Amino acid sequence: MKKDIPGLSCLTDYIWFETQSRTEMINITDRLDALVVKSGVQEGFCLVSAMHITAGIWVNDEESGLKKDLMEWLEKLAPAKPDYRHHLTGEDNADAHLKRTLIHHQTMLPITQGKLDLGPWEQVFYVEFDGQRRKRVVVKILGSKN
Amino acid sequence: MKKDIPGLSCLTDYIWFETQSRTEMINITDRLDALVVKSGVQEGFCLVSAMHITAGIWVNDEESGLKKDLMEWLEKLAPAKPDYRHHLTGEDNADAHLKRTLIHHQTMLPITQGKLDLGPWEQVFYVEFDGQRRKRVVVKILGSKN
Amino acid sequence: MKKDIPGLSCLTDYIWFETQSRTEMINITDRLDALVVKSGVQEGFCLVSAMHITAGIWVNDEESGLKKDLMEWLEKLAPAKPDYRHHLTGEDNADAHLKRTLIHHQTMLPITQGKLDLGPWEQVFYVEFDGQRRKRVVVKILGSKN
Repeated sequence: MKKDIPGLSCLTDYIWFETQSRTEMINITDRLDALVVKSGVQEGFCLVSAMHITAGIWVNDEESGLKKDLMEWLEKLAPAKPDYRHHLTGEDNADAHLKRTLIHHQTMLPITQGKLDLGPWEQVFYVEFDGQRRKRVVVKILGSKN
Repeated sequence: MKKDIPGLSCLTDYIWFETQSRTEMINITDRLDALVVKSGVQEGFCLVSAMHITAGIWVNDEESGLKKDLMEWLEKLAPAKPDYRHHLTGEDNADAHLKRTLIHHQTMLPITQGKLDLGPWEQVFYVEFDGQRRKRVVVKILGSKN
Repeated sequence: MKKDIPGLSCLTDYIWFETQSRTEMINITDRLDALVVKSGVQEGFCLVSAMHITAGIWVNDEESGLKKDLMEWLEKLAPAKPDYRHHLTGEDNADAHLKRTLIHHQTMLPITQGKLDLGPWEQVFYVEFDGQRRKRVVVKILGSKN
């Protein structure tokens, strides 16, 4: 959905995922680039937020070793195990809620001269901790068209 | 405080807390919903940020078991204990500063069609790690009225 | 770079760092205050984001003991050690990527009545985990001039 205000533009979109495995990291930078172009915003902000509470957003390096390091480290700090209180409800994913908390569930990206103003190595990842079902990310872009 | 700009609206408010116990989790989603309505913003952003450095904001599930899991897990990763350097100043709450860091102190919520655009289970919590005194959260809403 | 839109103003700037040691904490609150004044924004948002993926932003207390506590605690949770997969690429800084993840790489600061609307003890720090090279932070301010 795109909306124009005098001097401003706003775009809202949702990116859907249904991962094959329980945990997965998906680089969404290209999709965000395309949404920024579609928005027409030249100077503004782009919010990217995982709407399901067992997934997060990570802004870091597209390097396969580091990505595995991250997932192993999260497993160590917030391990999957049976004895969480949350599991008394029938759920089995308390660790996924904690992992989302550790990496944080959202990022705000600056848009400068019509493009995402990222550092040289910054890439944006959707990080799934309890997948194999349909889940989504909200992308909200707001800023100046000029 | 509400301010109108051509096409835009801005609202700033503060939510005060004085918890009974040292640690507490308070669901503030309803209060934020009410502020969004008051702002008149249809498309925009709502920043929610804990202004005191021993409290944070958590966007996750309203489930009592998980909330206890979170607090136990934070205690394990950032335990209350005497031997922090910060305590040489007379303070006793270094763990609370670290817990705020772990869950992060703020969130940015999208507003779409006049409502907080949250996922199906997303709820917003003020998480107090060193309470029993007056502390506040700033809420800043900016966006289009149309 | 400053841009004016009817009723609105946008400023983008970059703060460069080249630290003497591998890890360092630099209080940038005064520099951000100056950029807010320069922007002329009265009501709005100020995004502060570390553009290099081994540095982060921390909003907390200017207290030397606590700052050391933070760095020791991060070292415990995400230790520097040789056996990360990332190091097979020739890098030696996987821990710095994880530490950035723990403290988060950015913050969004509210601007109210022309000033950063921070809590009584909130200070903004650039936290370097792999320094001794030129790196930068993007600052993006957007809001109403009135």
